[in-house]
Amino acid sequence: MTRTFKLTIAYDGSEFAGWQVQPGKATIQGTLQQALRHLTGESVQVIGSGRTDAGVHAFGQVASLSVPWRDTPRRLAAALNANLPDTIVVTSAEDAPDGFHAIRDAVSKRYRYQLQVGGDRDVFEYRYRWHLHSKIDLELITRAAGRLIGRHDFAGFQAAGSDRRTTTRDVRACELFQQPSTDPNRLYLAIEIEADGFLYNMVRNIVGTLVEIGRGKQPPEWIDQIIESGNRDIAGQTAPAHALFLVRVGYPPSANMSVDPDRAPK
Amino acid sequence: MTRTFKLTIAYDGSEFAGWQVQPGKATIQGTLQQALRHLTGESVQVIGSGRTDAGVHAFGQVASLSVPWRDTPRRLAAALNANLPDTIVVTSAEDAPDGFHAIRDAVSKRYRYQLQVGGDRDVFEYRYRWHLHSKIDLELITRAAGRLIGRHDFAGFQAAGSDRRTTTRDVRACELFQQPSTDPNRLYLAIEIEADGFLYNMVRNIVGTLVEIGRGKQPPEWIDQIIESGNRDIAGQTAPAHALFLVRVGYPPSANMSVDPDRAPK
Repeated sequence: MTRTFKLTIAYDGSEFAGWQVQPGKATIQGTLQQALRHLTGESVQVIGSGRTDAGVHAFGQVASLSVPWRDTPRRLAAALNANLPDTIVVTSAEDAPDGFHAIRDAVSKRYRYQLQVGGDRDVFEYRYRWHLHSKIDLELITRAAGRLIGRHDFAGFQAAGSDRRTTTRDVRACELFQQPSTDPNRLYLAIEIEADGFLYNMVRNIVGTLVEIGRGKQPPEWIDQIIESGNRDIAGQTAPAHALFLVRVGYPPSANMSVDPDRAPK
Repeated sequence: MTRTFKLTIAYDGSEFAGWQVQPGKATIQGTLQQALRHLTGESVQVIGSGRTDAGVHAFGQVASLSVPWRDTPRRLAAALNANLPDTIVVTSAEDAPDGFHAIRDAVSKRYRYQLQVGGDRDVFEYRYRWHLHSKIDLELITRAAGRLIGRHDFAGFQAAGSDRRTTTRDVRACELFQQPSTDPNRLYLAIEIEADGFLYNMVRNIVGTLVEIGRGKQPPEWIDQIIESGNRDIAGQTAPAHALFLVRVGYPPSANMSVDPDRAPK
């Protein structure tokens, strides 16, 4: 008898070819499925809330899976962690309702994009930040970020060649904040974007566009033009993958049973 | 005509077999010397203030070198950085007096050792912290740390088999501080130790000993016994290398000419 679980997972994506299983490559999904096969002797499919690209990290990716497991959810997390590399950790496991599906049931996602502005390259942060060498105007970025908020057609920020049914998304937050840095020549910034869902490469295309606005190459109103046109060709460059983090994924209360992680099945 | 420079260097030691050149292995010294050979066409020896072990990092390693360079120190740093991997960066270059020698002239060093106490493994910090799973008593560690301060014979904290002329060192600071953590189950700590010099593995042996005291296995007075005995066998375990950082190296004012980094030679 299998049981459905909701896992929350953090990973450093630097050394992985992304979430999705690919033959002959180290992927997050593949590594999790291998650990589960080792634990249970069975092939288990792990469904992630989204397929993060090569190099993208996660503080709180969510995955669903059905697995024959007779012990508590907490012990499933511990057993998985004992079989995962240092770069992947299951931070929580919960029983989920039968049929819980990490992609289909997700109602919101939050991503963070990390920047370093100025200074020498940082040997401890280069894996996690896009290093910009020229100054950017934070006021212009904040004004542009405000124009993204709301229900819009984001086709202009979608990677060329995508085929989502609808390109309308509800952006609920787009926040710019400074992070502590010990070097006055080096500014650490993060941009966090929350929406009901994202199109392919949407965050990285938004960040590339905001950076061009911050550099004064385009005004904040450029955001409106890109949204109205729906034309990917007029937006900014795609920011690199290695500075992107999936922060958290939201589910409706029915999918969050929040049961005792020490509960064993009846 | 060669010119003497003082370089300050930061590096992530995770992927290196330590500072010192070793045939067939990636080392910090070897990588710097390769970059210098590429820039100048000559074999240049880079002398580091100390040979950090495999896995040890640096915020401010100092190195001396004599090199034929006709441009400004700042441009030497920039040219080196363009020829170094992401994991090594020259944060400053200065003209130094002829005969300046990074080992011989050093008058103080400060190391930091980083700990994580409790919590799941941290996929973004595991390269830089020793993860302790059981609680430790910070008060006990602070009391023990105080007993290290001063001029003592630290032979009991020296790696077996070392052959320094004298094992007396002057420990000027031994500080425990908490670092910010976003997870309440996970404590981030750092221990910083400053002295006029260190014996081989001295910081890691001190940290291993402080952790045993923090766990209540030995009282703070154990420090005095180890110092008095001079016997390495009675001290605590050697803490792992990957959580150790060389923070900075001090030189007397005569070695710190602090000249204009944009000065070209006459």
